[in-house]
Amino acid sequence: MNSIEKLTELFLKFPGVGMRQARRFVYFLLSMPSSFLKELASSLLNLSQTVKQCQSCWRFFEENTEEKVCALCANTEDKSLLVIVEKDVDLENIRAGGVFKGGYFVLGGLLSPLSQNSLARMRELSIRIQNEKILQEIIIALGAHPNGDYTAQQLKKILVPHIKEQDITITTLGRGLSTGTEIEYSDSETIKNALESRK
Amino acid sequence: MNSIEKLTELFLKFPGVGMRQARRFVYFLLSMPSSFLKELASSLLNLSQTVKQCQSCWRFFEENTEEKVCALCANTEDKSLLVIVEKDVDLENIRAGGVFKGGYFVLGGLLSPLSQNSLARMRELSIRIQNEKILQEIIIALGAHPNGDYTAQQLKKILVPHIKEQDITITTLGRGLSTGTEIEYSDSETIKNALESRK
Amino acid sequence: MNSIEKLTELFLKFPGVGMRQARRFVYFLLSMPSSFLKELASSLLNLSQTVKQCQSCWRFFEENTEEKVCALCANTEDKSLLVIVEKDVDLENIRAGGVFKGGYFVLGGLLSPLSQNSLARMRELSIRIQNEKILQEIIIALGAHPNGDYTAQQLKKILVPHIKEQDITITTLGRGLSTGTEIEYSDSETIKNALESRK
Amino acid sequence: MNSIEKLTELFLKFPGVGMRQARRFVYFLLSMPSSFLKELASSLLNLSQTVKQCQSCWRFFEENTEEKVCALCANTEDKSLLVIVEKDVDLENIRAGGVFKGGYFVLGGLLSPLSQNSLARMRELSIRIQNEKILQEIIIALGAHPNGDYTAQQLKKILVPHIKEQDITITTLGRGLSTGTEIEYSDSETIKNALESRK
Repeated sequence: MNSIEKLTELFLKFPGVGMRQARRFVYFLLSMPSSFLKELASSLLNLSQTVKQCQSCWRFFEENTEEKVCALCANTEDKSLLVIVEKDVDLENIRAGGVFKGGYFVLGGLLSPLSQNSLARMRELSIRIQNEKILQEIIIALGAHPNGDYTAQQLKKILVPHIKEQDITITTLGRGLSTGTEIEYSDSETIKNALESRK
Repeated sequence: MNSIEKLTELFLKFPGVGMRQARRFVYFLLSMPSSFLKELASSLLNLSQTVKQCQSCWRFFEENTEEKVCALCANTEDKSLLVIVEKDVDLENIRAGGVFKGGYFVLGGLLSPLSQNSLARMRELSIRIQNEKILQEIIIALGAHPNGDYTAQQLKKILVPHIKEQDITITTLGRGLSTGTEIEYSDSETIKNALESRK
Repeated sequence: MNSIEKLTELFLKFPGVGMRQARRFVYFLLSMPSSFLKELASSLLNLSQTVKQCQSCWRFFEENTEEKVCALCANTEDKSLLVIVEKDVDLENIRAGGVFKGGYFVLGGLLSPLSQNSLARMRELSIRIQNEKILQEIIIALGAHPNGDYTAQQLKKILVPHIKEQDITITTLGRGLSTGTEIEYSDSETIKNALESRK
Repeated sequence: MNSIEKLTELFLKFPGVGMRQARRFVYFLLSMPSSFLKELASSLLNLSQTVKQCQSCWRFFEENTEEKVCALCANTEDKSLLVIVEKDVDLENIRAGGVFKGGYFVLGGLLSPLSQNSLARMRELSIRIQNEKILQEIIIALGAHPNGDYTAQQLKKILVPHIKEQDITITTLGRGLSTGTEIEYSDSETIKNALESRK
C-alpha cells in the first residue's frame, strides 16, 4: 500500500469520515506546502506527549505543570457536587454553560443493554467518590437515550453501596422540553416528563 | 384566471406548499376520476357544516350531537387541572400521550413581543376559568421558544387577577433534556434547565 | 368516519403528502373562513367540467373554446418535429424553455420492465403520427432513468413499423453533463455519454 | 496555544471541516493509542517524500521509480486524445469509468470571471501539447458551471495559437441529461442542450 492509500485508510478511521471525504483530505494535503504537513505531523506527535489525562476527572488536559490533576479539578468551586458525563466534549459543553460550579468525572463510555460491556473507569469513579470528603450530590448527566438511561440506572445500582456511609444523593438531569421544542412534535415521553416536572 | 391556475393559487395558501407542490396537486387531481374530485369537494363543504368549535376548549370537533361542548370536555376526568395549548394539534398530541387527565383550552395563537398582537380567546379563557369550580392548577403548555415564553409570561400576568379569589396555581411545562438529547449538542439554556430540574 | 378523518384520508392520497401534512391541511382548512372552503370546493368541481384533454397532445387544457384541440397544438410552429413526454409537467417545462417549436404528445405514463404494464395512449400516438403529414422527427424526451430508458426502447420498437412508410427519424434527448454537474461526482454512465457526445 | 487548540485549528483548514468536526477529530485522536498518532504522523511526512507530481499530467503519484512521469502517462493507449481536467479526483473519476483511453492533464484550478486569477499550469500545458506529436483532439472536461464554462472558453482562446500548426481539434464534454435527470425538474439550459444533442 502506498502513502496515499495508507493515509486514506487512516482518515477513514476518523469519526464521520467516509471514502469520499478521506480522499478529499489526502488530495488537500497533497496540495499544501510540506511545511503544513510537518506542522500537522508534529502537532500529532506533541499531542501524546503534552496532553495528559487528569487523575481526578479523567479528561484530557494540557498544562505547563507537573500536576497530575487539571486546573479545573484543582479549582473546583463547589466540592459538594459531582457531575458524571460520558465524554470530554460533554464536560466542555456543560463547562461552557458557566452555570455548574461543581466537580466533573468523565466516564469514557456508556453501557449498552445489548453488548454487556463494562465501564472502563468504574474503579476510578469509586476511588474518586471515596476521596471526596464533602460530596453531597452526584449528578448523572448522560444523554436522553436508551444507552444513557441504562448506564444511569446501572451506575446508581453500583454507586449505592459506595455511598451508603457517606450521605450522598444521586440525581439525574431533569427531563422536559428542551430549547426549541414544539408541543405538536414532542414524543409522548417528553410530554409526560414535561408535565411531571412542571413548575 | 382559469381553473388550473385558480386551484394552484388556492393550494399555494396551504401550509408548507410551494409552487411545485401546488402544481403537482392540480395535475394529480386532473388524473383522478371525477368521483374523487366530487368526494373531496363534498368533504370540504361538509367540514364547515359538521365540524363545530367546542364552547369549552375551543378545539374543532365533530360529533352526532346537539351539544355545544365536545365529548373530551364533557368527560374530563380530573377537573382540578386545566392545560392551555396553542393549537388543536398540540391538544391532540398531549391527548395521544394518555397521561394527562385534566381539561384543555386551545388558545388559537401566540403573542409576539414584536408584533404587539393580542390573544383572540382571552375573554373565553377568563370565562372558562371563572366557570371551573374545582380548578386548582392551570398548566401553560406552549412551545419552548421566544414567542411561547413571551405568551406564557403575558398569560400569567393577565390570569393572576382572575384567579386571585380562586385558589389556583399557574405552572408551565418542565424544561430539561427531551428524548434523544445529547449533552454534547445541548444549548446552554437546556443544560441549565436540566441541572436545575435534576431529581 | 367523520369529516376530519375523511378529509385527512383524501389528502393522504395527494402526491408527497404524509399523515402529518394531511392533518395540518385539515386544521388549516378548519381555521379558514367557510368562503375559502366553498371556493376550493367549487374550483375542484369546475376542474372536471372546464378542463378538457386535448385530442392531439393529450395534455389537460382549459380554453373558452369548443375546439377539441388545445391552442398549443393548433398553433404548432414546426410541424416537422414531435416530442413525446411522460406527463403534463414535463410538457410545461419544455415549453417554458422556449426553445422547442415542434408539437407535443403526452404519453401519460412509463413502461416498467418489471411490471409488464402497457402504455395507455399507444393507439392515440399511432393515430397522431399517421395524421401528421409533414412530420420528420419524433423526439422521445423521457427521464434519464431505467423506466425512461426502457420505455424509449419499447416505443422505438413499436413505432418503427408505423413510420416505415413515412420518412421519419426517431431520436432521444442527448445525454451528458447537466447544469451544475461536477466531473468529480459524475457517475461513469454520465462521463461516458459526455465523452461520446463531446463537440 | 496548546496542542489541542493547535490541532483543532489545523483540522479546521481541511476541506468541509467545521469547528464541531475538528474538535471531534482531536478527541478521537486523544482516545487512540499513541501508535496510531505515530502512524498518522509518519504517513503525513511520507506523503511529501514519496509522492511526486507527474511531469506530464501533473497529477500526484507514487511509484517505486526514478521516472518523472507516472505509469498512466507512460502507458497511454491512445495518444491522439488529451483530456484536460480541473483536479486529481476528476482524473481518477474519468479513469475509473474505464472508457477513456487517451492522455490526461490536470489543470490544478479554474479561472473565475470575477477574481481575474490565472491558470497555474498554463505554461506546462503549452509545453505538453507541443511535445505531443500525434495529438489530434484536446477534450476540455470541466464542471458544467460558470467557472468551468469560463475556464473552457479562455483555454480555447489561449490554446488556439498553440495548436495552429498542429492539426488539433478542441472539444468540450457533451451537455444533456445526466443519469437520473427528470424532465420535470430540468433547468431550461439542460433541456436546450439535450434537445440540441439529441440523436
